[in-house]
Amino acid sequence: MIDDASHPLDHGRAEAADLAARLADEQAADIVEVLNGIPPGLAASVLEVLPLERAVEVLDQPGLDGTSDIVRAMPRERVIDLLTAMSADRVTDVLRDMDGGPRSELVRSLDPETRSVVERLLAYPEQSAGSIMTTEFVSVPSTWTVAEVLHHIRMVESTRETVYSIFVTDPVKKTLVHAVPLRRLISSDPHARVLTAAPARRPIVVSPLADRMDAARLISKYDLLAVPVVDSANHILGIVTVDDVIDTIVQETTEDVQRFGGVGALDEPYLRIGFWEMMRKRAGWLSALFLSEMLTASAMQGFQSELEKAIVLTLFIPLIMSSGGNSGSQATSLLIRALALHELRLRDWWRVAGREIPTGLALGSVLGAIGIVRIALWQQLGLYDYGEHWVLVAATVGASLVGIVTFGSLAGSMLPFLLQRLGFDPASASAPFVATLVDVTGLVIYFGVAALILGGTLL
Amino acid sequence: MIDDASHPLDHGRAEAADLAARLADEQAADIVEVLNGIPPGLAASVLEVLPLERAVEVLDQPGLDGTSDIVRAMPRERVIDLLTAMSADRVTDVLRDMDGGPRSELVRSLDPETRSVVERLLAYPEQSAGSIMTTEFVSVPSTWTVAEVLHHIRMVESTRETVYSIFVTDPVKKTLVHAVPLRRLISSDPHARVLTAAPARRPIVVSPLADRMDAARLISKYDLLAVPVVDSANHILGIVTVDDVIDTIVQETTEDVQRFGGVGALDEPYLRIGFWEMMRKRAGWLSALFLSEMLTASAMQGFQSELEKAIVLTLFIPLIMSSGGNSGSQATSLLIRALALHELRLRDWWRVAGREIPTGLALGSVLGAIGIVRIALWQQLGLYDYGEHWVLVAATVGASLVGIVTFGSLAGSMLPFLLQRLGFDPASASAPFVATLVDVTGLVIYFGVAALILGGTLL
Repeated sequence: MIDDASHPLDHGRAEAADLAARLADEQAADIVEVLNGIPPGLAASVLEVLPLERAVEVLDQPGLDGTSDIVRAMPRERVIDLLTAMSADRVTDVLRDMDGGPRSELVRSLDPETRSVVERLLAYPEQSAGSIMTTEFVSVPSTWTVAEVLHHIRMVESTRETVYSIFVTDPVKKTLVHAVPLRRLISSDPHARVLTAAPARRPIVVSPLADRMDAARLISKYDLLAVPVVDSANHILGIVTVDDVIDTIVQETTEDVQRFGGVGALDEPYLRIGFWEMMRKRAGWLSALFLSEMLTASAMQGFQSELEKAIVLTLFIPLIMSSGGNSGSQATSLLIRALALHELRLRDWWRVAGREIPTGLALGSVLGAIGIVRIALWQQLGLYDYGEHWVLVAATVGASLVGIVTFGSLAGSMLPFLLQRLGFDPASASAPFVATLVDVTGLVIYFGVAALILGGTLL
Repeated sequence: MIDDASHPLDHGRAEAADLAARLADEQAADIVEVLNGIPPGLAASVLEVLPLERAVEVLDQPGLDGTSDIVRAMPRERVIDLLTAMSADRVTDVLRDMDGGPRSELVRSLDPETRSVVERLLAYPEQSAGSIMTTEFVSVPSTWTVAEVLHHIRMVESTRETVYSIFVTDPVKKTLVHAVPLRRLISSDPHARVLTAAPARRPIVVSPLADRMDAARLISKYDLLAVPVVDSANHILGIVTVDDVIDTIVQETTEDVQRFGGVGALDEPYLRIGFWEMMRKRAGWLSALFLSEMLTASAMQGFQSELEKAIVLTLFIPLIMSSGGNSGSQATSLLIRALALHELRLRDWWRVAGREIPTGLALGSVLGAIGIVRIALWQQLGLYDYGEHWVLVAATVGASLVGIVTFGSLAGSMLPFLLQRLGFDPASASAPFVATLVDVTGLVIYFGVAALILGGTLL
């Protein structure tokens, strides 16, 4: 290969060989970390030079970034060799990130068996339990003895942790009967039927079309190492393992935090996202928020005569509006998590409203009191002159804060429920979105209170 | 117990017996879900009536809420029986949530062996790997054969999944030599030494004082079922298991989202937090933000003469300021996750700054263009009259948006780095905090640009 001058990556070849030699004895996860820190072209060269078995181990790690670029930079025969040796679920992950054309070409080059599994897995929607399941699992008919099952496991013992749950199926209907943990098997009488080692309870299962987070919740709730994915006839299609679940939880967390910050969820690490991709993820939301926030300008235009008469009112606009946004953001973050953890259901909305209104009134009173003290202090100390009606101005600011913080807490807490009701993920409620929602109403509340308190004096 | 009239929970006794009978055959995790939905007093009565073994299983679940209230509501002898039968790490969790007085009284009532383990575990700081480890694990001397180890495992096979990793120690120094997965053991020659089944690589270990998220990262990165916790002399103190790690990740996620929303992290589910506790978690941050945001009022006071001359400028204050906050919130959410996932290190700050400045300029230009179009449109369509200098006003708004969005993106992305540099968790950077930071500067930028563009005409 060294003298194959047509290869586009020749210049990095020596560096790649060097790196591969240094990495050969590292753990696969550590190799992944190194490859994630270098350009995809160089990573591809390293994976070309590594022994096939090690390269497969590395590609089998879900933590490897930019696999579609890596695959594109490798000679085709090597890619086929790698994909054929990788676990089917990981092959699917890698292919899923590729464009349609090159993807179907690669799928066609796979051996028929791998190909049929991969095509089936690719058909499951992203984010579904089916899309993260592995098709490597141990399943035995219920007629076997414990000794037969243990012998079978010794034969198939793979590098994966999937042997810790053994799935016992009906010998005729092939349906899932029980899940037996390996630990129970090894402490059972070898000559007894395998079902004697099964726990009394029916196995926990998940549908392939269920959300992957449902599989994660089951594994977390019941402390499982794997949950079987079964079709409607109770045939086992694959299993979702605890390590996939951890990756899922971490990934969903990242998406939730990013969406809460008002960004479209990123598919790749921050530094790997190109400039235009980054713009796309941020400009859309930012523009949408900007367009909604324009309503504040319209509201202000509506209050122009008040503004001209009482310029002093404008001084507190940023202060008052941001307090509404902040209290809303607090409430939203609390409710997003409570809904994600299933601590609350949709029907609990009124209980939440019943808590947020008094909480908002109390929080608003605290801020209102601080605001009034501040105005009084500045006035009395001569730091600023809020005019002859400064007491009324202070009262306006205080009362507005109570109203706006209460409204912010209520709106911020109800928004995630509303989104869930409309079929969206409650975690789509971002802090900037809540702030925007509260800002316009906040202005109306402020000028409404001002009209009430200052009418006849300043206004 | 039925006729023990002195018991404070008599009225709920029939209900509890009823519930216990219905729940007796459910999975422990499902019983937990039911108990989490009823008052702690009733939950305590149910746990009193359930067979001891089942009650222990339920209390061993980390998902059970309000354990300190439950324990307080139960007769003391029952509590001692339960704590003695529970796993030591869970006993520690339960005791950790209790007040000092009742806690040390309970610790003193435990049998000496449990007591010494619990006291040792209680000494590890919260959030440390030591605080979430279990002291139940299988460790064998390296002189044993595979068959001897398997026999030992059959003897100790417990209800827990901790038998899947066997820790091999030096027979003399008692130090950790290797971690052998059970699956390798059962496919090895029974008469060979246990070390023949060990993988070539040194075991991954964690220190008891390491952050619990470090243990989580190791388990997630290397796809482990458990990571041993060792002291400085390499003696194994306990293990952190994958199910504890999932709970840790979920809990840390909740805290991160809550803190990003500007709330102190809650220790309990939303509906379980009392009114005053909720006020404490929210009022502190809200007041701190309010006090900082007061700088906007001061800034506005500084610009009062400009405001009086050009009332039209006030119309866009909420719009412009919120855009700065939104872009900052986007950048912060991206960086918090990138730092939490170790995609970025502290030293990468300049690479991030080098990306955020052009991104901010581009995003600001998009918003600026929208803003200018809006003003021109309203003016031309006769929807609002921005005065004879409306072109200059539009230019002021557009240019300010470029400056403020760029500053927001930069400040929002640098804040998590700054916090990490100062020894804080980068996830302490909340969206409201970033918004407040950007607001004051945003006003200064806006009025600065206005002075530059409108000086001599409007100003």
